[in-house]
Amino acid sequence: MAKISLKERWERFLHNEVLKKKLYEIIFESDTFWGKTFDVALIGCILLSVIITICDSLVTTPWLETILVVFEYCFTLFFTLEYLARLYCSPAPKAYARSFFGIIDLISILPMYLGFFFSTARFAIVLRSFRLIRVFRVFKLFDFLEEGHLLLLSLRKSFNKILVFFLFVVILVVSIGTLMFMVESGHPDTAFTDIPTSVYWAIVTMTTVGYGDITPITPLGRFLSAVVMLLGYTIIAVPTGIVSASMIKEYHRKDQRACPNCHRIGHEENARFCKHCGSELEEEV
Amino acid sequence: MAKISLKERWERFLHNEVLKKKLYEIIFESDTFWGKTFDVALIGCILLSVIITICDSLVTTPWLETILVVFEYCFTLFFTLEYLARLYCSPAPKAYARSFFGIIDLISILPMYLGFFFSTARFAIVLRSFRLIRVFRVFKLFDFLEEGHLLLLSLRKSFNKILVFFLFVVILVVSIGTLMFMVESGHPDTAFTDIPTSVYWAIVTMTTVGYGDITPITPLGRFLSAVVMLLGYTIIAVPTGIVSASMIKEYHRKDQRACPNCHRIGHEENARFCKHCGSELEEEV
Amino acid sequence: MAKISLKERWERFLHNEVLKKKLYEIIFESDTFWGKTFDVALIGCILLSVIITICDSLVTTPWLETILVVFEYCFTLFFTLEYLARLYCSPAPKAYARSFFGIIDLISILPMYLGFFFSTARFAIVLRSFRLIRVFRVFKLFDFLEEGHLLLLSLRKSFNKILVFFLFVVILVVSIGTLMFMVESGHPDTAFTDIPTSVYWAIVTMTTVGYGDITPITPLGRFLSAVVMLLGYTIIAVPTGIVSASMIKEYHRKDQRACPNCHRIGHEENARFCKHCGSELEEEV
Amino acid sequence: MAKISLKERWERFLHNEVLKKKLYEIIFESDTFWGKTFDVALIGCILLSVIITICDSLVTTPWLETILVVFEYCFTLFFTLEYLARLYCSPAPKAYARSFFGIIDLISILPMYLGFFFSTARFAIVLRSFRLIRVFRVFKLFDFLEEGHLLLLSLRKSFNKILVFFLFVVILVVSIGTLMFMVESGHPDTAFTDIPTSVYWAIVTMTTVGYGDITPITPLGRFLSAVVMLLGYTIIAVPTGIVSASMIKEYHRKDQRACPNCHRIGHEENARFCKHCGSELEEEV
Repeated sequence: MAKISLKERWERFLHNEVLKKKLYEIIFESDTFWGKTFDVALIGCILLSVIITICDSLVTTPWLETILVVFEYCFTLFFTLEYLARLYCSPAPKAYARSFFGIIDLISILPMYLGFFFSTARFAIVLRSFRLIRVFRVFKLFDFLEEGHLLLLSLRKSFNKILVFFLFVVILVVSIGTLMFMVESGHPDTAFTDIPTSVYWAIVTMTTVGYGDITPITPLGRFLSAVVMLLGYTIIAVPTGIVSASMIKEYHRKDQRACPNCHRIGHEENARFCKHCGSELEEEV
Repeated sequence: MAKISLKERWERFLHNEVLKKKLYEIIFESDTFWGKTFDVALIGCILLSVIITICDSLVTTPWLETILVVFEYCFTLFFTLEYLARLYCSPAPKAYARSFFGIIDLISILPMYLGFFFSTARFAIVLRSFRLIRVFRVFKLFDFLEEGHLLLLSLRKSFNKILVFFLFVVILVVSIGTLMFMVESGHPDTAFTDIPTSVYWAIVTMTTVGYGDITPITPLGRFLSAVVMLLGYTIIAVPTGIVSASMIKEYHRKDQRACPNCHRIGHEENARFCKHCGSELEEEV
Repeated sequence: MAKISLKERWERFLHNEVLKKKLYEIIFESDTFWGKTFDVALIGCILLSVIITICDSLVTTPWLETILVVFEYCFTLFFTLEYLARLYCSPAPKAYARSFFGIIDLISILPMYLGFFFSTARFAIVLRSFRLIRVFRVFKLFDFLEEGHLLLLSLRKSFNKILVFFLFVVILVVSIGTLMFMVESGHPDTAFTDIPTSVYWAIVTMTTVGYGDITPITPLGRFLSAVVMLLGYTIIAVPTGIVSASMIKEYHRKDQRACPNCHRIGHEENARFCKHCGSELEEEV
Repeated sequence: MAKISLKERWERFLHNEVLKKKLYEIIFESDTFWGKTFDVALIGCILLSVIITICDSLVTTPWLETILVVFEYCFTLFFTLEYLARLYCSPAPKAYARSFFGIIDLISILPMYLGFFFSTARFAIVLRSFRLIRVFRVFKLFDFLEEGHLLLLSLRKSFNKILVFFLFVVILVVSIGTLMFMVESGHPDTAFTDIPTSVYWAIVTMTTVGYGDITPITPLGRFLSAVVMLLGYTIIAVPTGIVSASMIKEYHRKDQRACPNCHRIGHEENARFCKHCGSELEEEV
């Protein structure tokens, strides 16, 4: 009978709607006192655990490293419990698990467990920092959220263009890298030892990063790389142009009020009268 | 009689319209099952042959290199046959040979044959990767094709401007390179050994690549190069401005309303009347 | 009585409105002869003291350094007296002390006094150069001031967007730096010794600065950094797009037509009716 | 009498209008056969003399250098005679001498004569390459000239803004350079040896050139330089935004036709009817 009672208790716990609602308010929302306190504490924990991981990579004394690793385990345990609680109290656990924040929450606890098998994997818990994006929601910085949303919208609208552009860039850097390999590989002191290295050089050059770990030394190689740089100069203009054009369009579209008389749109946000026919515009809600 | 029959057979083959049409469907189009299969296989072969060439540059074991070269010859033989088949079945072989894809197809088989004479020439078959642009047509990604087309259109419209800009940049880097050579060449440890090297430095600096293989060491040289950098800072804005302006113009013209009277499109977003015939346009929904 | 008289004299000096007004005209304004002379002399002193500080860092001979430090003290004394005079003659001393220029004026004298405690702190008087912004007011270059104001306005309008963007960039570089640390730290000659160094590398790379003091050497590390560069290539487009869009909007709003009815300005170029009261606007000439 | 005759002949030569007109047609214009031939030959000479100067810097064999210098003198003699002929046949010699091309023409002959005094000064004749801008006029590439003109106009319109921006950048790099000097100069292996070097570093970093000859090594220095880079990331957007906005405005203003009915401007180039009221527009001349 004790066995049945345990199972029953578990069942009851799983369907305890009052507890679920209470937990949901604390964990997911941030309007109540405890909800806000929990969120602020959570952000603090995330920041602290990221800082501890960064320190861990700096430390070489064994006993100090051990302490830091213990802290990391504590935080990971806490985040694991939090993740389970979120799954438990969410009205739609599957939707949460598949949402952007759900995946981020999962990713931020997995690396520590992988760390049992690969020693460096535990540093991946720095990915936990993506959880900090919650900060805007917690502190009601909706203006910022909207700006970020607008940014993402602009980028998504130009996504197709940027993808086409990238395929073109990849073909270009592979071709240029190979040409440079053909030109430079004959020289005894060359740094262009194989095609992948040359393609790496082409990317470093065309993006104007220019480390200088691989540089041409033959006159023909230098001439070719000068052409590549001037090419990259123009090519860098393309994504900028795409994003600028897309952002400007977004700005223009921001006011959707149509004039009740001439039905034209494109009024400014603070406009009260149609700039085309002078009729009064309705106020935005 | 056998001889005549051979010539005759060749003649018949050359004018076998049924075979030509069948081949055309398979090679040029991708609507039928075999057409699609052929195109997918072709893309696979291109990718594979590019990857083999890249591996070839990495490999140093002689027997492995021999195997890879043999593979490269097989692929080139296949692409040569494909090129001949394209010429054979195309309704307008000359037009195909002179088209963008026709030239790319030819370029992608030539280097291997040049490789008999220059050992490194065979790596140029990486240029074959340009054939991958077909991928959009094969998988019906017309949206992407249109985006790419719009990109090219924007760039072509600003081509004159960019050419003028480049002539200006070339004159500028030659002059700046010479000035730096005059300033820096007196120092015993200078890297500015001659004018071409200095011009190369000027290009590396003005495009903000900045390898650091050639850097000024005299105070005057450093001052001059600081001026050059700040100059390059403003100059980098010019192609970006050109491309942005051109792209924004393209976006604005995208309005798809057709005039109800003359049926022409291309009106601006805020237009109320057709700019070609003066009829009233319908408002966009 | 002598004591009282001293206090009284001090009181009288503090409330000497004639002297205050005279001083105000000389120090704060630049319309009168002495006002302009003072401002020009001030700008000369600022330039000179900045140049002397720069020379101070170059000089190694002890006696020459002593002379320069003495000069620096003299200038600082002069600027201290000027600051006190400004506080004295300003009609609203507190407002002045809290204004942009008031804070700059204070900052430009503090470092020298801190220099008693930390030897290198005295170089911070170079911050004095921010006082040179006065040059536009002194020489009546109001056009320039207006342009600068417009620039600031554009930037302030896009401040929220840029802040969101920066938080995103910070999270990104921390994550990328950690990933690169995990990939590269295994190699014996690695430069990625800890996470902060790797994050520094990620910033150097994504901003396309590319010093080359830390570069990946493993094939996987090079591949990852190529991805990071191409990412940075697109990301660099975002602030440019934000600022461009914001500046274009500012330009569009520059229309100077005032409404004949409500006298308000700020209409768009293509507006025919006032957006505030609906009256017809006059056409621009 | 012979003496008088010589002076008289000189007088006659100076006022020989027929010769002047003939020469003017050949030297200044390029419509006649000889005019065009002369201009093409001139462009050839300029290119050749620039190439010879560049070769001169490459050559180390004394006798070869002598030959090249002799060639340089011949070209300079030719350009000197051409400059004098231009002054002689121009209807307004002073206006020519003060025009852009007049100054370029003078600059392109002076360095060789200065070369008598300073041995490296002769390389400055590379500035001769600016004369190549004539190429557009000679080959009637007026479209290109117009594009260049539009570019210059855009830049000139944003000149005030860019100047304000540059003053700000100069103050910023001086301040940042000094801060980095204060932070880094304590380290024994520092490359930040004095303030000018640090300011040079600040410019190299903020323009994203990033040579890597001077890099921070202390943790605080690296943190500060990361902030500087992210700052430069945003600042690089400002000139781009200025130029883009200015170019877009130029595009918009390109059609100045006002509608005869509603008097509004801003129609597209190929528009026949007003987009606002549908009235017919006048054709552009």
